[in-house]
Amino acid sequence: MAEILKGNAVVSQSGGPTAVINASLVGVIEAAQANPNINKIFGAVHAVAGMKADNFVDLTDIDAQTLEIVAASPSSALGSSRDKPNADYVKAIVEVLQARNIRYFYYIGGNDSANTCKIVNEEAQKLGYELRAFHVPKTIDNDLRTTDHCPGYGSAANFVARALQGDDLDNRALPGVKIDIIMGRDAGWLTAATSLGQQREDDGPHLIYFPERRVSMEKFVSEIKEVYSRLGRCVVAVSEGIKDENGVVWAKRIAEDAEVDAHGNVQLSGSGALADFLSSQVKENSDISRVRADTFGYLQRSFAGLQSETDVVEARETGRKAVEFSMQYESGSAIMKRVGNGDDYAVEFERTELKNVAEFTKDLPDDFINEAGNGVTEAYKAYARPLAGSLPKTEYLANRDRA
Amino acid sequence: MAEILKGNAVVSQSGGPTAVINASLVGVIEAAQANPNINKIFGAVHAVAGMKADNFVDLTDIDAQTLEIVAASPSSALGSSRDKPNADYVKAIVEVLQARNIRYFYYIGGNDSANTCKIVNEEAQKLGYELRAFHVPKTIDNDLRTTDHCPGYGSAANFVARALQGDDLDNRALPGVKIDIIMGRDAGWLTAATSLGQQREDDGPHLIYFPERRVSMEKFVSEIKEVYSRLGRCVVAVSEGIKDENGVVWAKRIAEDAEVDAHGNVQLSGSGALADFLSSQVKENSDISRVRADTFGYLQRSFAGLQSETDVVEARETGRKAVEFSMQYESGSAIMKRVGNGDDYAVEFERTELKNVAEFTKDLPDDFINEAGNGVTEAYKAYARPLAGSLPKTEYLANRDRA
Repeated sequence: MAEILKGNAVVSQSGGPTAVINASLVGVIEAAQANPNINKIFGAVHAVAGMKADNFVDLTDIDAQTLEIVAASPSSALGSSRDKPNADYVKAIVEVLQARNIRYFYYIGGNDSANTCKIVNEEAQKLGYELRAFHVPKTIDNDLRTTDHCPGYGSAANFVARALQGDDLDNRALPGVKIDIIMGRDAGWLTAATSLGQQREDDGPHLIYFPERRVSMEKFVSEIKEVYSRLGRCVVAVSEGIKDENGVVWAKRIAEDAEVDAHGNVQLSGSGALADFLSSQVKENSDISRVRADTFGYLQRSFAGLQSETDVVEARETGRKAVEFSMQYESGSAIMKRVGNGDDYAVEFERTELKNVAEFTKDLPDDFINEAGNGVTEAYKAYARPLAGSLPKTEYLANRDRA
Repeated sequence: MAEILKGNAVVSQSGGPTAVINASLVGVIEAAQANPNINKIFGAVHAVAGMKADNFVDLTDIDAQTLEIVAASPSSALGSSRDKPNADYVKAIVEVLQARNIRYFYYIGGNDSANTCKIVNEEAQKLGYELRAFHVPKTIDNDLRTTDHCPGYGSAANFVARALQGDDLDNRALPGVKIDIIMGRDAGWLTAATSLGQQREDDGPHLIYFPERRVSMEKFVSEIKEVYSRLGRCVVAVSEGIKDENGVVWAKRIAEDAEVDAHGNVQLSGSGALADFLSSQVKENSDISRVRADTFGYLQRSFAGLQSETDVVEARETGRKAVEFSMQYESGSAIMKRVGNGDDYAVEFERTELKNVAEFTKDLPDDFINEAGNGVTEAYKAYARPLAGSLPKTEYLANRDRA
């Protein structure tokens, strides 16, 4: 337990935006406003870049009405950054913090951000400058360790679940093969969430591929053909991080092939390449005529006005808890522990050491992936349903008995 | 005015699904259930294909609770078809209608569907079989003539407006050039709707390109560079039907180039190609390092649980009105006339001849496109806002005064 420390605070947001990272921001601001040990509340613009360049906005007196709109807005309201600070960078940050008498540092982000928190904290200690550094978890990838799940995941899960509900009905109406590419380079958490809206036994996605399971092009195409011959259609969700039988990321292989093959202006780079490549593979190796592919892209993390009701509440509370914990501890991350499931779903908030979040990431566990490596288990759905929040019920009429 | 005709009815859905085509279906069903001249109500499965193959479900006694879920479900609940019936096909359809004593035919679709209605009606007349054939307009493309707007457009407009609200905030957080490809091969109506969520003066999309205005690659790249140098970022909405300075569709040119260039497995076909091509052009012809592109794809028409509140009400009423009009007229289409705007927005429903909808389509009018050919006018926004329905208000904090 550390002693009570008085001074100013700074909050900032790092990495890829989410639908609820601003709810965490508001949680930090409102708890800081109510806290007698915190004087001024600064927002660092564009994360560590703003902290280094002394680029701040004053959030001390921001009104509650504006905060409610911020909490409902997607993306990072203070701007973000992909910078990874080195030693000199961190030194410059601590100098700025000292000059502004900032004693509380709240950093909303993924595991890299937890690491930044850690090294800023260590640098301050080295200089004998008393600083509390707290990490506020966020990521649509859901791949942070120690916490049960990450703020941001539930809303992105809700988005992809709705997207697949709609896309599956679209595929029933105009049958064929449909391939959807889902975000998540290293872990299949978000791709798994495409299953959450399934109601009927033959609802898609019928096949789901994760970075955690290698898949050869032969397996991919033959499994699609099997579903298509059985149902007359097939909807497939594929993680952008899908790997071939040798563990090589497909998207990387395609980009390299394209560079070698390039003869004119056309380059195979950018987000649509994997979708188009997989689609052409199915067309070439089957007699299925209607094959389509979509890459969901940034919509998954920054669609306006779509938040999981669980996620937005938890994201805000995570921000509040970080402020609360920073009154008791030098540093840490505000994580969630699940204490109830199903209808009794509930979480408790805990403080953990920064290193427990900063190092390594978390793959989908084996019991969340089916034996064939092409779908999820009921255990996954039970885990994820409360996080994604409510999904619409849908009806399809063409599967009724013929008159 | 035709005499009252008693018999069975059939309803079906054609072409690309929308978020509210099922609301129109429910409008037809509930009005037919309440109509004393209609006995059985059949749903033809997969549109004209089902009518030809005698593939029907019985919707006569479907309960109101199920209908409410159908009305809220995206895509076409009876399945769809892209078939364009020839003379023999139409003859086969009329034989099936006769065998089932179907006297009322309701066809929900675009201008091709209005044409199908027309030729089925003409074939029935030729055979002396009394039939009422009514078209119920739908299309996210909003390109039908005579009607003020089309059911389906408002919900798709709401989707792309929210998508760009989020994407613009994402681009503020992590600045660069972002290109979004929007559906609409022949007309720019849906691409124009990407502007509807703009609140701040510098909100994106900063540039919008339509099929109605030719754009050379030089103009495209230089306009992006101009915005980028001014704002430090640039969000661009591009219709998939964008044409070059000679009127050639860019997507078509790319597909042809790719076939000529192909040396291996990699083919440049499918939905991501245009986005990736435009993105590579900007990268090659500027020193902007962060350039990203997304193709929104089928999400625009079939995302679950997102309907414009105006659109879903009008779509359902359009279905009801088609049944009402079919009691008075041999054939026709149920269209909307705008009788109030802004806060007094209102429509009236009218019956028009099938030929007024079946022939030709409707481009964005000149006064909806700005002089530079790269954005919309206030006149467009005044037209489209009531159709798209409510959009979230958002906040961004990093543009506040520096502290």
